Amino acid sequence: MGIYLDNNATTRVDDAVVAEMLPLFTEHFGNPSSMHGYGAAVGGKIEWARGEVQKLLGAAFDTEIVFTSGGTESDNTAILSALKAYPKRREIVTSVVEHPAVLSFCDYLESKEGYKVHRIPVDGKGDLDMAAYEAALSENVAIVSIMWANNETGTIFPVEQLAVMAKKVGALFHTDAVQAVGKIPMDLANSEIDMLSLSGHKLHAPKGVGALYLKRGIRFRPLFRGGHQERGRRAGTENAPAIVGLGKACQLAREALPVELGQVAALRDRLESALIEAIPNCFVTGNPANRLPNTANIAFEFIEGEAILLLMNEFGIAASSGSACTSGSLEPSHVMRAMGVPYTAAHGATRFSLSRDTTQAEIDKVIEVMPGIIERLRKLSPYWTNQGASTAFQPVYS
Amino acid sequence: MGIYLDNNATTRVDDAVVAEMLPLFTEHFGNPSSMHGYGAAVGGKIEWARGEVQKLLGAAFDTEIVFTSGGTESDNTAILSALKAYPKRREIVTSVVEHPAVLSFCDYLESKEGYKVHRIPVDGKGDLDMAAYEAALSENVAIVSIMWANNETGTIFPVEQLAVMAKKVGALFHTDAVQAVGKIPMDLANSEIDMLSLSGHKLHAPKGVGALYLKRGIRFRPLFRGGHQERGRRAGTENAPAIVGLGKACQLAREALPVELGQVAALRDRLESALIEAIPNCFVTGNPANRLPNTANIAFEFIEGEAILLLMNEFGIAASSGSACTSGSLEPSHVMRAMGVPYTAAHGATRFSLSRDTTQAEIDKVIEVMPGIIERLRKLSPYWTNQGASTAFQPVYS
Repeated sequence: MGIYLDNNATTRVDDAVVAEMLPLFTEHFGNPSSMHGYGAAVGGKIEWARGEVQKLLGAAFDTEIVFTSGGTESDNTAILSALKAYPKRREIVTSVVEHPAVLSFCDYLESKEGYKVHRIPVDGKGDLDMAAYEAALSENVAIVSIMWANNETGTIFPVEQLAVMAKKVGALFHTDAVQAVGKIPMDLANSEIDMLSLSGHKLHAPKGVGALYLKRGIRFRPLFRGGHQERGRRAGTENAPAIVGLGKACQLAREALPVELGQVAALRDRLESALIEAIPNCFVTGNPANRLPNTANIAFEFIEGEAILLLMNEFGIAASSGSACTSGSLEPSHVMRAMGVPYTAAHGATRFSLSRDTTQAEIDKVIEVMPGIIERLRKLSPYWTNQGASTAFQPVYS
Repeated sequence: MGIYLDNNATTRVDDAVVAEMLPLFTEHFGNPSSMHGYGAAVGGKIEWARGEVQKLLGAAFDTEIVFTSGGTESDNTAILSALKAYPKRREIVTSVVEHPAVLSFCDYLESKEGYKVHRIPVDGKGDLDMAAYEAALSENVAIVSIMWANNETGTIFPVEQLAVMAKKVGALFHTDAVQAVGKIPMDLANSEIDMLSLSGHKLHAPKGVGALYLKRGIRFRPLFRGGHQERGRRAGTENAPAIVGLGKACQLAREALPVELGQVAALRDRLESALIEAIPNCFVTGNPANRLPNTANIAFEFIEGEAILLLMNEFGIAASSGSACTSGSLEPSHVMRAMGVPYTAAHGATRFSLSRDTTQAEIDKVIEVMPGIIERLRKLSPYWTNQGASTAFQPVYS
């Protein structure tokens, strides 16, 4: 097995999660809506899972949790629901660094459905422009959708505060918390957040399952219509095995939160400081003082992120440049561009995202091989040979 | 283990399907969009699965298959896509016996979005009123959505013919084939069907995965927007384990089609004729000459379906009254009402849905215990004690 440092793209399903799911494929496989024993056993397990999601989020009621097929469905559902529920409000507020599940959807709503979209900029550290946010809020805004933590840099937005501000103009507040859930503590019961998206496969549950938190009492319009599953909020046979897997993953994440904040953060810091020290012309992107404990995004100047990944892959190390969902593009990611990271650095931005499975030996190995990889690539780079160019491209922060 | 005769509600995941899925949870768990070995292996498996779905459907191209989270998503997506793609056409044609994923969605589109919905009636055998269908078609119709086979009775609609008729007025033709796929042969390449929905968990794949067939060249508008997965037609990280499971299930279903049409149909016929012979005042609903090989829906007069199911459950036999998605209601199902089945019989309609796992010994056991169950319940029925009432409620066909 190699060294997997791409946990913000997707995680390995925990063995305990698989064990919890297995009986639901071949033994307790009934339809939970059915009138017989095959179905009855399943309903209770789904409700147990709902409670585990509730606990991880610190939500007030388990009925605030609706199971979905994943983050994209949750995000799209939340935004569309608000627009349908408040048809006279024709504006949306979001940020420039959202995941495509929010940003591309807003682009569509703007270009095809005639909504006005405010995309709040960020500064060089990826922090939100609070003045621009405040200026965008008005009684025309149906929904604010701003992520809890950025998938590329890990930078955390002050969502509780943003939610309070949104409520003042009567707008619903949604947060894509796909990267944040399980990595930092949450207390939704004592927040003004109305809706929150999470995705199972980012926290050691399987792909194909997620949840949408809906604060009790808010107006909601379903995306899927049909059967009355999930109290009429999401039609379709419940994905019982994956839901139970998600419940187990949430339980494990809740128990492992001290590990995430302690051991994982320490390994991340160790990796980061060792690479910054050993490798010239590289720097951390995002806000090092306010980010997820598992994420390090390091921009190596004058080389290509994809070339870095290919060489890392030769050593069995998996990481990412930009997000998996935008790979295949030759442009630096929209997040790096939004922060104003110079192209010569943004192209070499490499995301190392750890998990509770990451070991010290793995980090040591990465620290050992990365300098050689970067050096090897820079020898091929025209920008590096002509090092004078580097003065023209100052890193955003050094 | 008991006797599971509720395969139209959901099926047991085949052991071979589970075996195919397992490595994708903990070994090949990468995001298929990623640039490293963990992701690369997954992409190929997804494409293999796409080919298996294509083969089962007899589709011309594997790119015509889009993976979804299940039947409801596929149905909702197909209908909404057609309405968005042809905004000047404001009418929908469907049938009165569709699954709620189509029917409830159409109700919503009619009551909240201002579309006109034609709901084509059926006769006493559940066959479509072809004259009413033809009369409903016009150039105002954006989409026809009519199921391939009914979930409660198994009655098969002539979808190829219906599609040809729809094309004449330029309407798209969609079919909810959730119950039909894997149970009867399909040859979409040589049909005029534009869109088809299928659900994994109805054919021994897991819950939470399905597909939408989109004939090459038709206009399509996605329901989910975000990443560019599924060629931009369905955003969101691919549910790789479940997709691969669906591929395996489609392969198995294709190989087992002769079993379905032979052995399963024979067991179903044996069950049906034995019960009809042994139990007075019961009859088969639907069209016995034109239905799925695995489905028998028998209406037992003067008793309640839910009571029948509870007593069957005591013997470890699982079946269904109405569909799982509409259970909990005290009314007979909309399908029984649409066929004009008298209330005194519709209330006792019981669906036995077999699979290739069903054994002769299981069927013999059901044949053995059902007469006693029905007799026991009828002794408690006021309608039965006063048998004269039965003459006032003639079965639709006897």
